[in-house]
Amino acid sequence: MIVILKKGATEPAINEFVEEVKQKGLGVHISTGVDKTIIGLLGDTSKLVPEDFLANDIVETAERVSAPYKMASRSFHPENTVVCIGTGQSGVIECKIGDGKTVPVIAGPCAVETEDQIMNAAFAVKKAGARILRGGAYKPRTSPYSFQGLGKEGIKLLEKAKKETGLPICTELMAISELKNFENVDLIQVGARNFQNFDLLKELGKFNKPVLLKRGLSGTINELLMSAEYIMANGNENVILCERGIRTYDGYTRNCLDVSAVPYLHKVSHLPVVIDPSHACGIRWMVGTLAQSAVAAGADGLEIEVHCCPEKAWSDASQQLPPSQFEELMIKLGKYAAVEGKTM
Amino acid sequence: MIVILKKGATEPAINEFVEEVKQKGLGVHISTGVDKTIIGLLGDTSKLVPEDFLANDIVETAERVSAPYKMASRSFHPENTVVCIGTGQSGVIECKIGDGKTVPVIAGPCAVETEDQIMNAAFAVKKAGARILRGGAYKPRTSPYSFQGLGKEGIKLLEKAKKETGLPICTELMAISELKNFENVDLIQVGARNFQNFDLLKELGKFNKPVLLKRGLSGTINELLMSAEYIMANGNENVILCERGIRTYDGYTRNCLDVSAVPYLHKVSHLPVVIDPSHACGIRWMVGTLAQSAVAAGADGLEIEVHCCPEKAWSDASQQLPPSQFEELMIKLGKYAAVEGKTM
Amino acid sequence: MIVILKKGATEPAINEFVEEVKQKGLGVHISTGVDKTIIGLLGDTSKLVPEDFLANDIVETAERVSAPYKMASRSFHPENTVVCIGTGQSGVIECKIGDGKTVPVIAGPCAVETEDQIMNAAFAVKKAGARILRGGAYKPRTSPYSFQGLGKEGIKLLEKAKKETGLPICTELMAISELKNFENVDLIQVGARNFQNFDLLKELGKFNKPVLLKRGLSGTINELLMSAEYIMANGNENVILCERGIRTYDGYTRNCLDVSAVPYLHKVSHLPVVIDPSHACGIRWMVGTLAQSAVAAGADGLEIEVHCCPEKAWSDASQQLPPSQFEELMIKLGKYAAVEGKTM
Amino acid sequence: MIVILKKGATEPAINEFVEEVKQKGLGVHISTGVDKTIIGLLGDTSKLVPEDFLANDIVETAERVSAPYKMASRSFHPENTVVCIGTGQSGVIECKIGDGKTVPVIAGPCAVETEDQIMNAAFAVKKAGARILRGGAYKPRTSPYSFQGLGKEGIKLLEKAKKETGLPICTELMAISELKNFENVDLIQVGARNFQNFDLLKELGKFNKPVLLKRGLSGTINELLMSAEYIMANGNENVILCERGIRTYDGYTRNCLDVSAVPYLHKVSHLPVVIDPSHACGIRWMVGTLAQSAVAAGADGLEIEVHCCPEKAWSDASQQLPPSQFEELMIKLGKYAAVEGKTM
Repeated sequence: MIVILKKGATEPAINEFVEEVKQKGLGVHISTGVDKTIIGLLGDTSKLVPEDFLANDIVETAERVSAPYKMASRSFHPENTVVCIGTGQSGVIECKIGDGKTVPVIAGPCAVETEDQIMNAAFAVKKAGARILRGGAYKPRTSPYSFQGLGKEGIKLLEKAKKETGLPICTELMAISELKNFENVDLIQVGARNFQNFDLLKELGKFNKPVLLKRGLSGTINELLMSAEYIMANGNENVILCERGIRTYDGYTRNCLDVSAVPYLHKVSHLPVVIDPSHACGIRWMVGTLAQSAVAAGADGLEIEVHCCPEKAWSDASQQLPPSQFEELMIKLGKYAAVEGKTM
Repeated sequence: MIVILKKGATEPAINEFVEEVKQKGLGVHISTGVDKTIIGLLGDTSKLVPEDFLANDIVETAERVSAPYKMASRSFHPENTVVCIGTGQSGVIECKIGDGKTVPVIAGPCAVETEDQIMNAAFAVKKAGARILRGGAYKPRTSPYSFQGLGKEGIKLLEKAKKETGLPICTELMAISELKNFENVDLIQVGARNFQNFDLLKELGKFNKPVLLKRGLSGTINELLMSAEYIMANGNENVILCERGIRTYDGYTRNCLDVSAVPYLHKVSHLPVVIDPSHACGIRWMVGTLAQSAVAAGADGLEIEVHCCPEKAWSDASQQLPPSQFEELMIKLGKYAAVEGKTM
Repeated sequence: MIVILKKGATEPAINEFVEEVKQKGLGVHISTGVDKTIIGLLGDTSKLVPEDFLANDIVETAERVSAPYKMASRSFHPENTVVCIGTGQSGVIECKIGDGKTVPVIAGPCAVETEDQIMNAAFAVKKAGARILRGGAYKPRTSPYSFQGLGKEGIKLLEKAKKETGLPICTELMAISELKNFENVDLIQVGARNFQNFDLLKELGKFNKPVLLKRGLSGTINELLMSAEYIMANGNENVILCERGIRTYDGYTRNCLDVSAVPYLHKVSHLPVVIDPSHACGIRWMVGTLAQSAVAAGADGLEIEVHCCPEKAWSDASQQLPPSQFEELMIKLGKYAAVEGKTM
Repeated sequence: MIVILKKGATEPAINEFVEEVKQKGLGVHISTGVDKTIIGLLGDTSKLVPEDFLANDIVETAERVSAPYKMASRSFHPENTVVCIGTGQSGVIECKIGDGKTVPVIAGPCAVETEDQIMNAAFAVKKAGARILRGGAYKPRTSPYSFQGLGKEGIKLLEKAKKETGLPICTELMAISELKNFENVDLIQVGARNFQNFDLLKELGKFNKPVLLKRGLSGTINELLMSAEYIMANGNENVILCERGIRTYDGYTRNCLDVSAVPYLHKVSHLPVVIDPSHACGIRWMVGTLAQSAVAAGADGLEIEVHCCPEKAWSDASQQLPPSQFEELMIKLGKYAAVEGKTM
C-alpha cells in the first residue's frame, strides 16, 4: 500500500500519521520529494482498505501496489536512486551510479592473483577512465578443484590498489562469515549464484555498504527486485541491480545478455541498473559490442573484466580484455554516451 | 570443405577443377574475391581428404569447415553480402541492406487492414525515413478464431501503397500455394513459426526474391544459419537474417531480444542481420530503447511496427508505434547510427 | 462460451437453439453425452452475455470458457476422445488410441530406407506387440545436405508393409502439396517443426485422417491445444497429441521429456496423449526407462523408434532400438500397464 | 585420473603407492570393491601421464576421467552408494536410500508451523508408510515479507516428532551459522536456491550428516554433480541427489519435472537419486501421477509434501497432500515399485 500525502502536510501531522500506521504492526518507508511525500506501508497490508486512509486530512490518495516488491518499486520512490561509492573516504575518488549524467565503468580482473597483477590492472583501468576497480578475492567456482581466490589476502591487495590509485574497490562476498574483511570494500558484489541466498542478503541489509546485486542465472526480474527488497527491508537502500546474462537454450554465448532488463527495471524500479557484458557473453571480442548496446539501452554503469595479460589469467581467461582494447572501447563508449548527453 | 585457389589461377584451370569435383557427386559454390577465388564443396564431403587437393597446382589450401552451414558461412564468402530490395522496378526506390553505410528501417503495420489504413501508414513511415514498407497479408495467429489477414487482397493493397510511395514492400509468406501472389513483393518474410518449414525454404530458394528469414522462437543460431542454407543451396543467395526475440523462462517481455546475435552472426556469416524490436518485447514504450540498442550492436537494419491508430489495430495493438513516436525515434536512431558513420 | 442444455431437451428445441446461435455468426460444436448435451459456441463470443441464454427454457447453464481453445477443451467435450486408426480398411488391424484400456505402441524406423529394411522392421515390431508401424518418408532435417527421405517411394514401401503385416501405418507430412500421397496412410504425423504451420493444420482439418500432432520444440501446452484447435475447427476431430521432449537450457539429453504434460493435458482436454521417448532423449539406453515413466504417467500410447540394424541407420542412429531390446521393453511395459489394468 | 589396481595387490604395496601420489600434492580416494581396488587422484592432474603409473607392478590400468566431477562419478566408485539415515540413534528407525530394494518416501509439511501440526503430520505420514519426516524450519522465501519459518524452534519441534514416532527427520539448512542447531537432524537438505552456495557445501563436507542436495532451478546435471563433489571432496560422501523440477519457458506447472535425470544420474554417478514431485509441479492433483512416473523411472526415493489441513498451510498451500490422499498414493506407488521387485 502506498499513501500519497497532500502538498503542505506539516511535519507533526505526518509524524502522527506514521505513528498510527506503526501501531497496526506495519513498517513505514518515507520518500520525501519536492512536491509530495509518499509513505510506503511495509508488511502484511492485505487487510487494510485504501479508502480508510482518505478520512485523514493530509492524505491525497491511497492505493494498493500490485508488485510484490515495495521499497524497490518506483511507485514507492518515484525519483531515481543515486548510489554513492567511496564517499567520505580519504584519498578515494567518489563515484555516483544512477545520476543520469554518467555511465561509470567498474573494471579490473576476474580474480586478484598477485600484487603486481592487481596493481598493473588498477593503473591501467584508471588510465582508460574506469571509475571503480573490481577484482575477485573469493571466487565462486563450479569445481572444488578450481582456483578459489586469494580470500582475505586478495582484499588486502585490493585495498593497496585503492590507496595507490584512489579508485573505490568492488569485490564479491560469498559467505557471511567473511563480511568482517569487507570493512574497506566500497561496493560489495553479490554473485549470480547467491542472488537468492536470503541470509546473506539480510546481513547486507544491516551492513553499511552499497551492494551490487547480480541477477541469477535464471532469475526473473521480479525475483531480482525481491532480492533487492531483502536488502532494503533490512535497512540498506544502496542497492545497484546488475544484469549479467541469463541462461537460455542456446549456448553460442556463455549466457544471453537480456538488454531489455535495463528499460524494464528503470520503469518499475528507482534503483540503478548496471550491465556486465563480460559474463554475459564470455567471449573477448564480443564484450565491446555488448557494452555499446548496453549504453544505448540506458544502462547506468558497466562492469567489464580487464587483465593485463588475459591469456595467462587464472580464471575466465577467454573473456577479459587487455588494457589496449579496453582503452579503445572506453573512447567508443564515450561517443555512445554522448548521444544522450552523458559521459563515461 | 573449402578450397582456396592460388592468385592467378586461370579460368580454364578453374573450370577443369570444378568439373573434377562435380564428378565426385558434389556441388560447387564459387566466390570470386579481389585477391583469391574460394571454392566451396557442397554435399557429403566426409570421405574426402583435404590433402588430396593440394596435388593440384592451382590449389593453395584446402580445409574442412566445421560449421554445418557452408554457403551462409563467412569462410566461404569473406565479404559482406549486400541484399538489394526493389531493384530494377520502375518507380520503386531501391534499398540496400548490409552495405555497412546505412541502417534501413522496414516499417508499417502488423497487418494490412484497410486501404486507408495501409496508405496512411505508408506515407507516415516514408515521411519519417523508413525505406521499406511492411504489412501482414497472411497472419500466423495462434488461434484459428483470430483475424487471419486479408490474404491476396492485402497484397494488392500493399502493391497500391508501393505505387503511391515508391517504397519497396515486405510481407510474410506462410504457404507455398500462395507464392503466386508474391510476384510484386520485394522482400518475402519467413516468420518465426515457419523458420524450419523446410519445404517452404526450398521453394524460396527457387524464387527470385530477397528473403527476410526470422529466427524461430527457440531457434539456435546454428539452426537459423542452416535454414538460410536451405534457401541458398536451392539457388537464392539474397537472404537477410532477422533476430526477433527468443523464448526464455521469464515472461516480463513477450520474447527476449538476443542482441548478441548481431555480432555473432556477423562473425560467422556474411549475411546481413536485421533486428525486430517490436516482436522482441511486445511493449510499445520499450521498442525505441531496444531499437537504439540494436543499432549500437551493429544491426544492418530494423523492422518496426507502426500503425496510425495503434489502439484500434486488429492485431498486436500493444506493440505498434504511432507515427509521431516513430518520427522521434528515427531522429534519435540517426544519432546512434552516426557514431559509426552510418545513416538510417 | 459453452451452453449446457437441460436433460430431456427435445431435438427440435435443440435445432431451433442452434439456428439462433448460427444467425449470430457463430459456429457450433455439439457434444451429446449420456446425460446432457453441451453446445460449444465458436468464434468471437466476446460480446455475448451468458445470462441471455438462460431465458431459453432448454438451457441449464451458460458460461464463458477462459481457455483460448474450445473444441479441444474438456469443458466442451467431457468424455475422452477415442481415435480409431485403420478402421474399415480391408486386411488392416484396427487400433484405438485413448480407450483407457490399452497403451498402443507406434513403432518402426526413423526413416524408410529400403524395402528390406522396412519389411524387416514391420514384422519385428508386430511380433513384439506394436500396433501401428511408423517410418519417415519425408524427413525434416536441419541440414539441406542430409538425407531428406525417400518421399512418395517411401510411402509406397510403407503401404506394402501394411499389406503384409496388417499394421496401420503412420508417417509425417511436411507439405500440403504431398497430401495426395497420404490416401493410404492411416495416421498422419505433424512434426515438431511444423506444429504451428497453420496452413498445413487447416488442410489436415479438411482431410479425413487421424492426425498425430507433435508439440513444438518450445511449444507451450496452450499452443499445442490451439494447434489442435486449428485442425478440429476445420472439421477433423481425430487428433492425438504427442509430447516428444522440449528444449531447455540443459543439453545432456537431446530434448527434455516433459512427463507432466500427460496428466495436465488429460485434465484440460479430452484428446488422447502419446509420448515419444525416442526423440525426447535421443539416447538408445534411456528410451526404455522413459517409456516406463510415460506409461506410469498415464500416456495413452507411445511412439518408439525401432531399426533392425540401428548402427547403420541413415538418420537418428543413436536413438533407435534393435528388435531384441524392443521386445524386452514391451514385456516390461506390459507390467507397468497392468498396474492400472491396461494392456499394451 | 583413476588408477585401477591389480587383483591381489597387497596392503603395504597399496599404501606405498598412495604415499607416492600424495607427495605429488594430490588427494586420494580409495574405493575397495570385491574384485578390484580403484584409486581416484584428486586435484590438478593435468600434468600427469597415465602411462607413467603402469610402471608400477600393482597397477592394472590408469586413465583420465573426462567428467569434471570425480568422487561423484561412477568411474571412481562403480557400486551404488547406499546412504543410511538415522543410523545408530536410539529409538530411531534407520532408513537406507539407494539400496535398490526400497523406494523410501520423505514426507511431511512444507513448513513446521505448530507443535500440533507437525505431530499430526508425523503420525499421519508414518501410518501411511513414509520412512523419513520432513518439515521446513528455515524457509527460503522469495519475499522478505513472507513467513520465514520458525527457525531453531521448528527444529526442536521436529526433534520432538522424531522422539514420538521414531522417524528420522529431514530439514533445510540455509546458513552456516545455523548448523549448530542441526546436531539431531538426520538428513540435511540443501535447497535449489543454495545448490551453488559453495561455502555452505564445503561446510557440509565437514559435518558428519547425510545431505539431500537439490538441483538448482536452472542447474545442469553437471553442475549438480560438481556441487555434490564440493561436499564429497571436503569429507562427506553421504550425498543424495534430488531432482525437483527445472525452470523452462512454459509455466503451466510451477517447474518442469525432468524425469530423465534419474536414469542419467544413475549412469554417470553412484549416488542415490530422489525425486520431489511436490515442488516439481506445485499442483496437488498432479503430485501422485508424477510420483508414479518417478518410481517407474527408477528413483531411489521420493520427497512429498503432506499437511493435515493443506488449505490452511502457511506456505505452498496448493501443493501439499492431505493424509487421506497420501495414504492412497502410497498404496498405488507400492504397486509400481513391485514391478521391479521393490517395496516403498
